Amino acid sequence: MRIALDAMGGDHGPTPNVGGARLALDANPDLTVVLVGDETQLAPLLAAGNLPAGRVEVIHASQTVEMKEKPAEALRRKPDASVFRSWQLLAEGKVDGLVSAGNTGAVVAGGLKTRKFLKCVHRPGIATVMPTAKGRCVVLDVGANVFPKPRHLLEYGAMGTVFARHILGVERPTLGLMNVGEEEGKGHDLVQKTYDLFRNSPLKERFVGNIEGRDIHRGAVDVVVTDGFTGNVVLKLCEGVFDFVMGMVQQEVIAPLPNDRGVAAQALKGLVGKYHYSAFGGAPLLGVEGVCIICHGSSKDAAIANALGVAALDVRVKLNEKIVAELEALPANGEE
Amino acid sequence: MRIALDAMGGDHGPTPNVGGARLALDANPDLTVVLVGDETQLAPLLAAGNLPAGRVEVIHASQTVEMKEKPAEALRRKPDASVFRSWQLLAEGKVDGLVSAGNTGAVVAGGLKTRKFLKCVHRPGIATVMPTAKGRCVVLDVGANVFPKPRHLLEYGAMGTVFARHILGVERPTLGLMNVGEEEGKGHDLVQKTYDLFRNSPLKERFVGNIEGRDIHRGAVDVVVTDGFTGNVVLKLCEGVFDFVMGMVQQEVIAPLPNDRGVAAQALKGLVGKYHYSAFGGAPLLGVEGVCIICHGSSKDAAIANALGVAALDVRVKLNEKIVAELEALPANGEE
Repeated sequence: MRIALDAMGGDHGPTPNVGGARLALDANPDLTVVLVGDETQLAPLLAAGNLPAGRVEVIHASQTVEMKEKPAEALRRKPDASVFRSWQLLAEGKVDGLVSAGNTGAVVAGGLKTRKFLKCVHRPGIATVMPTAKGRCVVLDVGANVFPKPRHLLEYGAMGTVFARHILGVERPTLGLMNVGEEEGKGHDLVQKTYDLFRNSPLKERFVGNIEGRDIHRGAVDVVVTDGFTGNVVLKLCEGVFDFVMGMVQQEVIAPLPNDRGVAAQALKGLVGKYHYSAFGGAPLLGVEGVCIICHGSSKDAAIANALGVAALDVRVKLNEKIVAELEALPANGEE
Repeated sequence: MRIALDAMGGDHGPTPNVGGARLALDANPDLTVVLVGDETQLAPLLAAGNLPAGRVEVIHASQTVEMKEKPAEALRRKPDASVFRSWQLLAEGKVDGLVSAGNTGAVVAGGLKTRKFLKCVHRPGIATVMPTAKGRCVVLDVGANVFPKPRHLLEYGAMGTVFARHILGVERPTLGLMNVGEEEGKGHDLVQKTYDLFRNSPLKERFVGNIEGRDIHRGAVDVVVTDGFTGNVVLKLCEGVFDFVMGMVQQEVIAPLPNDRGVAAQALKGLVGKYHYSAFGGAPLLGVEGVCIICHGSSKDAAIANALGVAALDVRVKLNEKIVAELEALPANGEE
């Protein structure tokens, strides 16, 4: 299979993208990586990186969307940006998927612009995998759709269920709606209407009802459905709390140890690596034709390689076919 | 000063409330606690607890709102519930404040029903104090108002600023609006309109603009303004991530230590205590006449005592007078 990599995307420019491509090619024998970006910058990195020639291609893109650039402006002013060229390759069927550590808004905007959504999908959503006390769960949407309609959230539930089953390996995933309390009738209009949609859909057997913020890491459910505003705050808050607590543990627990400071610091480093976002292979934009994986802007080689690996897996298991089958089972609903 | 304590509120019934009252009376010589609840249950606890007779009163309330009860139903069916009786005492001026570890929705509903809001306040909001890498910050609203108007958020910014200055001791508090990105124009309609309100208000000098989830624990600002839906998810998510990470540290870092396991476990316990919600003295419902502090349902003696201490402090520093002065400086705005 062929995956486009937005080689200019991310805080660190093309270097970790090329490094990540090399790692991913080693790990996935069926993979070809199409590096999209400035070929004059990429050529020396490719030469130095010793990448397998037959499994890497370069498609030149003369522009780059900056991390802080407004997506709508970028779309207008930079048609030849590496991220939009990657989407174009996907829309033309020249690749099976794309990976980008660039400006998340621009990645999503590029996808929305192609309008190539899966059958039955009204709005794509970004899913992210989070660690829990019982394993892993998938949370969506974490930022593509900050003011969704109930129907969108129902579709996110269906897509998340398919993702949990085929990517996380949970045979019978359970599903919860993020809310401010467990009882029916809690929260604002959006969650109340969404609750009713789930209760009256074929997903009702997986739907445990409302969950609260503390339930995510307890592993209360396999799929957490929320609007893109709340989900984005959740995603970034977890990162902040994790960094904060790890810093405090280092400072107040490990630093004062009389004998085991070294071994404890090493174990803490292992823990940070295990639960760091980079270990979870990026966030898929679910609901588009083809596969799109969005990486954290600060991704290094390993995170890019994990994301390419997840993109390859999504293609391999035919995730999109399964999503369409799940969505076709939902009741038709005029409300977009 | 006189503070009413909803003696029946919380997961553990009256015992930690009476215990907390005793601790708070020891720590605050100017405090009288009015225990509101079932006098037949309270009498033996008071006798056994050896509370200073002249500084404790009991007001009988024949009903108790259960933790899972729907607030609107409770208001209708249980007029003599301890939490509503506490509000009544406050509305009648018989106490200066109230503390409850009971059903949060019922506490808020009781306050909304009295309609005794401070001058210039359209909707009260719940504030909570969170630890950060630089000290502490206040986040509001965390659940009183799940679908606010921009004007409400502006008022929360003003109230949070006063709280940060007079309770957290920050001379020149900074203020941020929770959003999905830092750039102006990010997010949904509510945050975009709120952003403009802040930029065009006397608070503009304190307003740093949009912040993201990860900024809270970095200590990017002293006051975080958000809607009650997002804020409630934030509050409970922090609890969940904290518990999850502490569990992992115990299991993967501390348990395998060859020599220092005991001392490390002790230090971790200290850290948990320091950053546990119970150390932060409950969450004030800001914007009502008098003082109202809402405690976590699982509060034990120390958490109740801290909340009573914070209530006493709010009265002592005349927090409400200062809130009204700050709100009077805001531009009048027809929008409720």
